[in-house]
Amino acid sequence: MRNLTMLTDLYQLTMLQGYYRQGMQHRRAVFTMFFRDAPGLRYAVMAGNEQLLDYIKNLHFEEQDIAYLRSLKLFDEDFLSYLTDFRFTGTIDIIPEGTIVFPGEPLVRVDAPLAEAQLIETALLTLVGHQSLIATKANRVCRSAGKDKVMEFGLRRAQGPDAGIYGARAAVIGGCSSTSNVLAGQTFNIPVAGTHAHSWVMSFESEVEAFRAYADSFPDNALLLVDTYDTLNSGVPNAIMVFEELRAKGGRPLGIRLDSGDLAYLSQQARQMLDEAGFPEVIICASNDLDETIIRDLKLQGARIDLWGVGTKLITSADRSAFGGVYKMCALETDGVLQPKIKRSDNPIKVTLPGLQELYRIYDPQGMAVADLITLADEVIDENEPLTIFDPQDTWKRMTLTHYSLKKLLTPLVRDGQPVAELPGLMAIRDYREQDEATIWEQHLRLIFPTAFKVDWSHKLWTLRNNMLHDAEGRHI
Amino acid sequence: MRNLTMLTDLYQLTMLQGYYRQGMQHRRAVFTMFFRDAPGLRYAVMAGNEQLLDYIKNLHFEEQDIAYLRSLKLFDEDFLSYLTDFRFTGTIDIIPEGTIVFPGEPLVRVDAPLAEAQLIETALLTLVGHQSLIATKANRVCRSAGKDKVMEFGLRRAQGPDAGIYGARAAVIGGCSSTSNVLAGQTFNIPVAGTHAHSWVMSFESEVEAFRAYADSFPDNALLLVDTYDTLNSGVPNAIMVFEELRAKGGRPLGIRLDSGDLAYLSQQARQMLDEAGFPEVIICASNDLDETIIRDLKLQGARIDLWGVGTKLITSADRSAFGGVYKMCALETDGVLQPKIKRSDNPIKVTLPGLQELYRIYDPQGMAVADLITLADEVIDENEPLTIFDPQDTWKRMTLTHYSLKKLLTPLVRDGQPVAELPGLMAIRDYREQDEATIWEQHLRLIFPTAFKVDWSHKLWTLRNNMLHDAEGRHI
Repeated sequence: MRNLTMLTDLYQLTMLQGYYRQGMQHRRAVFTMFFRDAPGLRYAVMAGNEQLLDYIKNLHFEEQDIAYLRSLKLFDEDFLSYLTDFRFTGTIDIIPEGTIVFPGEPLVRVDAPLAEAQLIETALLTLVGHQSLIATKANRVCRSAGKDKVMEFGLRRAQGPDAGIYGARAAVIGGCSSTSNVLAGQTFNIPVAGTHAHSWVMSFESEVEAFRAYADSFPDNALLLVDTYDTLNSGVPNAIMVFEELRAKGGRPLGIRLDSGDLAYLSQQARQMLDEAGFPEVIICASNDLDETIIRDLKLQGARIDLWGVGTKLITSADRSAFGGVYKMCALETDGVLQPKIKRSDNPIKVTLPGLQELYRIYDPQGMAVADLITLADEVIDENEPLTIFDPQDTWKRMTLTHYSLKKLLTPLVRDGQPVAELPGLMAIRDYREQDEATIWEQHLRLIFPTAFKVDWSHKLWTLRNNMLHDAEGRHI
Repeated sequence: MRNLTMLTDLYQLTMLQGYYRQGMQHRRAVFTMFFRDAPGLRYAVMAGNEQLLDYIKNLHFEEQDIAYLRSLKLFDEDFLSYLTDFRFTGTIDIIPEGTIVFPGEPLVRVDAPLAEAQLIETALLTLVGHQSLIATKANRVCRSAGKDKVMEFGLRRAQGPDAGIYGARAAVIGGCSSTSNVLAGQTFNIPVAGTHAHSWVMSFESEVEAFRAYADSFPDNALLLVDTYDTLNSGVPNAIMVFEELRAKGGRPLGIRLDSGDLAYLSQQARQMLDEAGFPEVIICASNDLDETIIRDLKLQGARIDLWGVGTKLITSADRSAFGGVYKMCALETDGVLQPKIKRSDNPIKVTLPGLQELYRIYDPQGMAVADLITLADEVIDENEPLTIFDPQDTWKRMTLTHYSLKKLLTPLVRDGQPVAELPGLMAIRDYREQDEATIWEQHLRLIFPTAFKVDWSHKLWTLRNNMLHDAEGRHI
């Protein structure tokens, strides 16, 4: 397991030294991580918890780290000696991987001594942000593909090895059925998939020889790339010829792959040629800079594609390259009492939610999610009593629920610095995501202009925030 | 050093087994990596060579890798035993890190036994592609900032740990002066920078106490974040008060940081307040979703910003999330002779350049770059003779050079599987990039609508490609 303790911003360490000098390092602090509403991110798929836990488990400075920090001439020996013994001793609650989550709600809640809660900010945002970003993008792509399977193909275009490896993991959480990435397959037990490249075809004197050689090597998995020279005049006829030979020898022709040209037209033509040649079971796989928008359009135009290979735009979340998660202090112990904290801003979207919070998902009697509700942690909701929720901005928009059930979304990950429970395996997470997704109405998951899912605040939380904002002195000019 | 041998696409391994079964694995093959012209990528800064070399040095399958591959039930024991002894034994030439490069030219040339040249495709594209993408983005940002320094700030928004670490490395190659990323600083000896967050200010009873505590901790490096509550009515006045106290105690006030609001207006107002208070030497640092376009506009509008902190949009190359590098076979040994190979395509931009190639940069007598010229490797250019070059598409556009000099851009990285030379350190690479950039006319590096830098082909290469394309039979309908 890699030690990522130094994967942090310098300012975390300069702040830590400041807290240490002020004797504040042990004060209890609560931070939450959340993301803000943005195009392409009206909902997200939670991911990265396992890597966050690995990071926390392994959090300690090595001797050479201390030596490096000493060399910066910013830190004194007292503080460096404090860092030598630094461990995470606090509490982390997190929404389980695969859960559908929404802007503005706490995805992670860290309750720990101030210095510890502060130091982990950077890595937490990097690890959870990256995977949630890719899981979300993959989910959008897979939703567009409907019942068709989607293969994750993007390693070569990923932003470095980790982006490929953890991106593949996140893609599976989001809904992909397999990856081309062998290391990700090995690490996370993801099904791996793939066939051959144009260079395979170019390595032989003719396309048909190349197909024949490939089918010889993989008689039960022959998926042939048909666009090296001319898809309909050469590639598909040659593939059919080799499929016939393969069938005669008892092999099982699997399919063809299209990687250029008009995928709607070519897939329709190829389908017809394959069907007429007696290969209705042979699948057509398509790739070439695909994303959720193109896949949706291709399907609308009647493309006959059974399997989608999605690379660059999924693995880099091309239309939105960062999750934009933030991690903000919401409470700090002062004189022995936990006090709510708020960050004000001229920009209302940047004002934070104060206080130690809890997050509930409210379900109707059919098990469909109605809204999420953020409360203060000490509030108790009696499910036998009607519950009135309201929009935090347009407070006149309200709804009273009589028959409902509640689920706490934040679940324990770390207690007193120790992992609380075994995390589920990747395939179990994917299954959970599928179940969870089925409890969210389709209109909240639409690709464009989805209806916002309600994320409301309890009356007590709303009042606390409102009072804290109005307490501040206005501007004098 | 991480073993990234398994960081590959499954199809590389299925092709390898195919080549192995056909007895083709040892045939000499030549591949080149290049990128295609695209918005935001009219030029690029070469980067990632060191990580490619590390990958090659460490390229071998471990026992557990073989066991995993066996478990896939795709590979036979003969082939798995071949993989056990697999090493890279070939030759790699590459354009040095920090060089300004252009679309369509060979950045990397791999000349190796077919199986070896094929296997390394994925990792090569991932490693070189990612860093060249970020070095290029950083270069665009730094060019916009002019003489101002740019700090790389993006770790928390990076696509995983590697994207943060190697992204910081690439950002320095592109022109950034420092990074917030402590692990990148430690690994590559990059200057690290940073101050404090909003949470620091929120941890104290008042902003002025927070500033005072920070200045106490870092009397020679106090850079104060002034926008937690109200930049001009609270943040800047409080910073000035603390700077006055600090100066009285012999400390050195460093600067303030703006992280929200209108950075042009706020920086002008803050500058005036600092100057009037007797702190003309105190710098103003700005951050908040910056990129090359916003920086250019802020400077045009007279923003008084001395130092730029650039995060999300640089570390993820937000407007172009992938380099889009490709790796194509250009020659293959057949019957003992190296034969040129070409990939045709309906899409002319996807047609490749055939043959073993060489790449020259042509300089005028003042040392400015005039054009790049791709030739076949066996061509000799006599610098004492006039040289006529022409546009490969519009061949009537030609230019004859009488006084010029040539530089081969591809330099040896690996020979017979062994590293050829020590690679330069990161700061030397950055200096080299600065020198190299100065040989390229500004008009080729403009942010929008730059004039294309000439990348021409020798007459012999042009003729070879043309003949190979025309040899193919046209479409019959």
